[in-house]
Amino acid sequence: MSTLHPTREGDVILAQDAPFRLEAGGSLQPVCIRYAIYGELNESRDNAVLVCHALSGSARAADWWPEMFGSVFDLSRDCVVCTNILGSCYSSTGPTSINRATGQPYGPDFPQVSVRDIVHAQAQALDELGVHRLRIVIGASIGGMQALQWSVDYPERVEHCIAIGTAPLSAMGLALNHLQRQAIRLDPKFNGGNYPPEEQPTGGLGLARAIAMCSYKSAELFDERYARKPNRNGEDPLRSFEHRYDVAGYLDYQGQKFVQRFDANAYIVISKAMDTFDLAHGYSSEAEALKRIRAHVSLVGITSDWLFPPEAVRALAERIEAAGAPCDYTEFESSHGHDGFLAEVNAIAGVVSGRFHARRLAVVKNKAHVVCS
Amino acid sequence: MSTLHPTREGDVILAQDAPFRLEAGGSLQPVCIRYAIYGELNESRDNAVLVCHALSGSARAADWWPEMFGSVFDLSRDCVVCTNILGSCYSSTGPTSINRATGQPYGPDFPQVSVRDIVHAQAQALDELGVHRLRIVIGASIGGMQALQWSVDYPERVEHCIAIGTAPLSAMGLALNHLQRQAIRLDPKFNGGNYPPEEQPTGGLGLARAIAMCSYKSAELFDERYARKPNRNGEDPLRSFEHRYDVAGYLDYQGQKFVQRFDANAYIVISKAMDTFDLAHGYSSEAEALKRIRAHVSLVGITSDWLFPPEAVRALAERIEAAGAPCDYTEFESSHGHDGFLAEVNAIAGVVSGRFHARRLAVVKNKAHVVCS
Repeated sequence: MSTLHPTREGDVILAQDAPFRLEAGGSLQPVCIRYAIYGELNESRDNAVLVCHALSGSARAADWWPEMFGSVFDLSRDCVVCTNILGSCYSSTGPTSINRATGQPYGPDFPQVSVRDIVHAQAQALDELGVHRLRIVIGASIGGMQALQWSVDYPERVEHCIAIGTAPLSAMGLALNHLQRQAIRLDPKFNGGNYPPEEQPTGGLGLARAIAMCSYKSAELFDERYARKPNRNGEDPLRSFEHRYDVAGYLDYQGQKFVQRFDANAYIVISKAMDTFDLAHGYSSEAEALKRIRAHVSLVGITSDWLFPPEAVRALAERIEAAGAPCDYTEFESSHGHDGFLAEVNAIAGVVSGRFHARRLAVVKNKAHVVCS
Repeated sequence: MSTLHPTREGDVILAQDAPFRLEAGGSLQPVCIRYAIYGELNESRDNAVLVCHALSGSARAADWWPEMFGSVFDLSRDCVVCTNILGSCYSSTGPTSINRATGQPYGPDFPQVSVRDIVHAQAQALDELGVHRLRIVIGASIGGMQALQWSVDYPERVEHCIAIGTAPLSAMGLALNHLQRQAIRLDPKFNGGNYPPEEQPTGGLGLARAIAMCSYKSAELFDERYARKPNRNGEDPLRSFEHRYDVAGYLDYQGQKFVQRFDANAYIVISKAMDTFDLAHGYSSEAEALKRIRAHVSLVGITSDWLFPPEAVRALAERIEAAGAPCDYTEFESSHGHDGFLAEVNAIAGVVSGRFHARRLAVVKNKAHVVCS
């Protein structure tokens, strides 16, 4: 598949004159937000679709969610906007950015950010780009958290909110994220976050990614794909401690690939933002926050997702509905686990298309069924 | 609860004159097996109950499974025997033992052992102790693997086999075990397994234990106990990267406790033995192995166990039955996950008592229900 290039991409620089205040108490000045735009904003400026990326994504939505372009997003009609989140290492301000105060990269001094902070920076960047009204905000995982936060914090700007595999993290999710950060910290090359950019703590970050991959996939998928097969390179786990089963070889490979493209401090920052996501923050309660929503909210759960179990997504949908916001919940059957949002784009596209055309969902697709609407 | 002391405990020394050959190709000479005996062997030597311990257990069964004594094991009638497994660090030959060839601890040179090796050493040790016939062999997790292996390899010696939360590991189980070993190897203090006994790779072994604890517990239990509460020591995860949620504090604590009582090389050896468990080994197929069984086999699945999912335990029960061996399967509802075998001893005791009195199981207990018999 050839990669679709953005119509336009670049950086918006915010907080040049006054610091950007963060929920946890820190601040940043300035703040750079990398954006990518596919298609064109129409004259009435009502055709923008904001795509919010997940933990390791970038502003180039067509690079990591290519199947959505053409199937769901029609660039003759839609203007798809995506911004790299605060704290990331794909050109927005994050731990690898230069700290103006020191002339050095922030590294471990990068302040703690929340999903709210991420969304507030995103909203200011969109203002600069002249994108005020969002026909749809869509995302999965921490991208879905952003979509929901948009609907709460900027109710007047969002028409439809689509959040896939998203809810406040359960205790097991918090546990798994914590263990990933501990793996990074265990690597001596991490050195408390003070490592040269070219000397990533590859062991720790790779292990973190491998733990995460277990939480992104499902036991069912692992059994289908790997079962108890020895590693495909000919290793024999019966004979040597170092020889692996196939699933272990897969996880190590995923870790090795990941460290080539991600920064360990950024990983800690974003995984912590995922932990602290809670729509109640900044409001008197979650219910008060949800009452602000004016968008139609579509939540999607994936049956085999154990990082964001469908029950938790459905429960959130029920709380949104109870708060008076129009909300539907769709659950689709997939063995892909949390990663179903990337692996089963056709099913997702069905859900999204339904929302896109603002129809009430009846049957979205063979594999997907609407549970409440 | 005061600790019940063994009636007798000590070491059996095997392979003094000839090496003990291991499945993976290595050998050990000599082999020490630590045993503990509670109660007395009767004159007809038909009252022995062999308890097989799990990964981090010891020969002192009453230390880690105290509730079973008095409720299920009646020492006026039963003679409960437990041996520390090969590869462990609780006095049987393992990586912390002195390698006769070097005069130094084996450390990382300790050879790979299998559940079969563990059971064969155990069987030889029992021979030395005059225990030939086993009324019951019981264990959970890798202890259950041993119980099953006993029934296959020594069909004439075992009357009842009770295995709880046990099956060949699924791909997800293999993945989680692998990540635990990778965590240990990541710790610079591990140094390829060459660390002084007093300088354990506490970071890596602690992280391994924390990952394991996630697999031993259930998401449901974590939600009940910890939810999204901040760590009970007053940390505020919204304010600092280092501040944790309660579940993270719990996991770190479990890791810290564990490193005080376990050896990292032993952890690798035993977790690898758990990986390679497969009753087909040494036979032409699993079915051929299962056909050898003469014992009545009782398998127990725990509803919330995701390391050894009840479906996998049940499927094993069906394969045993298909091979012609008498087998029943009981599933008990518990939110405790795999650790249910330790946390819900009353329910387990119900199952075991049923077997103990060799009755056909109808209703074992309120919370347990027999699914097939």
